[in-house]
Amino acid sequence: MPWLIGLDWGTTRLRAMLFDGDGAVHETRERPWGIRHLPDGGFDAALSSICEGWPQVPVLAAGMVGSRQGWREVGYADTPADVDVLMAGIVAVRSADGRQLGIVPGVRDSASMDVMRGEETQVIGALACRPELSGRAQLLLPGTHSKWVEVRDGRIVRVSTMMTGELYAVLREHSILGAGIPEADATTTNHEAFDAGVRIARDSGAAGVLTRLFSARALMLAGRLALDAVPDYLSGMLIGEEWRAGLASGWLLPDTSPLLVGDERLCARYARAATLFRLPEADCISDASAHGLWRIGRAAALVGPSAIAQAQGAH
Amino acid sequence: MPWLIGLDWGTTRLRAMLFDGDGAVHETRERPWGIRHLPDGGFDAALSSICEGWPQVPVLAAGMVGSRQGWREVGYADTPADVDVLMAGIVAVRSADGRQLGIVPGVRDSASMDVMRGEETQVIGALACRPELSGRAQLLLPGTHSKWVEVRDGRIVRVSTMMTGELYAVLREHSILGAGIPEADATTTNHEAFDAGVRIARDSGAAGVLTRLFSARALMLAGRLALDAVPDYLSGMLIGEEWRAGLASGWLLPDTSPLLVGDERLCARYARAATLFRLPEADCISDASAHGLWRIGRAAALVGPSAIAQAQGAH
Repeated sequence: MPWLIGLDWGTTRLRAMLFDGDGAVHETRERPWGIRHLPDGGFDAALSSICEGWPQVPVLAAGMVGSRQGWREVGYADTPADVDVLMAGIVAVRSADGRQLGIVPGVRDSASMDVMRGEETQVIGALACRPELSGRAQLLLPGTHSKWVEVRDGRIVRVSTMMTGELYAVLREHSILGAGIPEADATTTNHEAFDAGVRIARDSGAAGVLTRLFSARALMLAGRLALDAVPDYLSGMLIGEEWRAGLASGWLLPDTSPLLVGDERLCARYARAATLFRLPEADCISDASAHGLWRIGRAAALVGPSAIAQAQGAH
Repeated sequence: MPWLIGLDWGTTRLRAMLFDGDGAVHETRERPWGIRHLPDGGFDAALSSICEGWPQVPVLAAGMVGSRQGWREVGYADTPADVDVLMAGIVAVRSADGRQLGIVPGVRDSASMDVMRGEETQVIGALACRPELSGRAQLLLPGTHSKWVEVRDGRIVRVSTMMTGELYAVLREHSILGAGIPEADATTTNHEAFDAGVRIARDSGAAGVLTRLFSARALMLAGRLALDAVPDYLSGMLIGEEWRAGLASGWLLPDTSPLLVGDERLCARYARAATLFRLPEADCISDASAHGLWRIGRAAALVGPSAIAQAQGAH
């Protein structure tokens, strides 16, 4: 019997999961309705359409849907933040078709002022999958904005953002490095080029990879890098820079790999790059959002017969 | 009496200088006819139009006009490169209207494979203005692609590129950091925001500024950075990163400032940032192209009565 609908609602994508009473995902739906690409009718229409035919159960959403450009702005929860803090920050919204929706707050690192939205729920989900890490853990969530997260005693204590994915995209699409380069097949990786890029970042020392970025162009002009190898070389440089900076800043200890949380293929790139830094093999969790939404929903008493009765009464 | 026409012909701009017999610039003209924005009729039409009414004297060009996408591809001169090496690499082109044009080669760092086109001529010009630096000097040429150049005994021995200007542009125009930010007034600088960005880069240590780039967004969201202060903050971070990386790599000695060569306003930003690193005040040369074209033209015997006679005979 379905008990909860979870929404992972970001900038470019909306994913909805229907949970069974034991937290298993019964059905998943995905639409390209990120908060900047909503269908006619906006948030209400998107929710109503993606949940079509699903029962009237509580809905819990995480991600940019709670940002200033989202459905309802939900203030950040400050670090240190755990499930209870996130739960307390949930903001309720009533949809046009009478669904009860809760939006999970993002987390703000009160020291550095760095922020995240959506990733906090993935972190909670990852810790639910790896309870042994709750005492002390470092998590790396690769993506458009890669997040470095530190956990102590089950609480998120530090957040730091590397714009790796976005840097890759703007350099690939709008800079000289991407000029004349054919569309890449995103499903395959040129490992040789990727590894070469990682090594360039690794060996850039304290100067960092920005001093070597132009090598993607110079090597191509010199005939030492094929045009269609440039994207993976660039990807290697930028992902390698994350590991280099993580080690140089002391965030990463030389003999630890953080838990990777996110898209499987992207995590595999990070894991591969980590080995070139002689870091231990990194563990990866790719379905953390679902686990996190379930975990927070349960804590917020959005899960169970009385919550369902209330959701149906609201209708 | 005019003796030489010099062309500084880059990607976005064409500048023409008419030199007197003593190397003084008699007249300067500028058009937005970079090699990617040529008028109808292409290179020939651009040259003919910008030189309209000028006498039939030799023409010497430097910059992207000698690249693969230029008028004629001119191979790179390898380091170490001095005036004689550049002169030997000049490639002659005859224009449709009968002008004799020489194109100066770019320089390739034979160790790192890094390259430059146009900046080699500025370096030669800067050394002509500061002969005391010919023995040993470091030059920094800020721009879309900032070039770090090392000179020994009058020869360019090392070239390294930082894509600072291009990074700024793509982040400003295409990333989340520039989202919603009003067009900036390019003639004024928010010094407070710029300095704050420089300090962030300086204090990022060996991790480097990419670990702090997102602060432009986080501080703005937190109300600690005004929307219209973001561009100068970003500029400060990226220019600061050049100094940080220059020091961290050992290229810069803690008590030396390189000679800045380029646009006056941009050099002033670099000089200001340098003081926040406690570097000595940096000297700046802003008309190095003209000096370089004249110096190379003279070495190549493109200057003088017989060269003029030949140029007119060609016509």
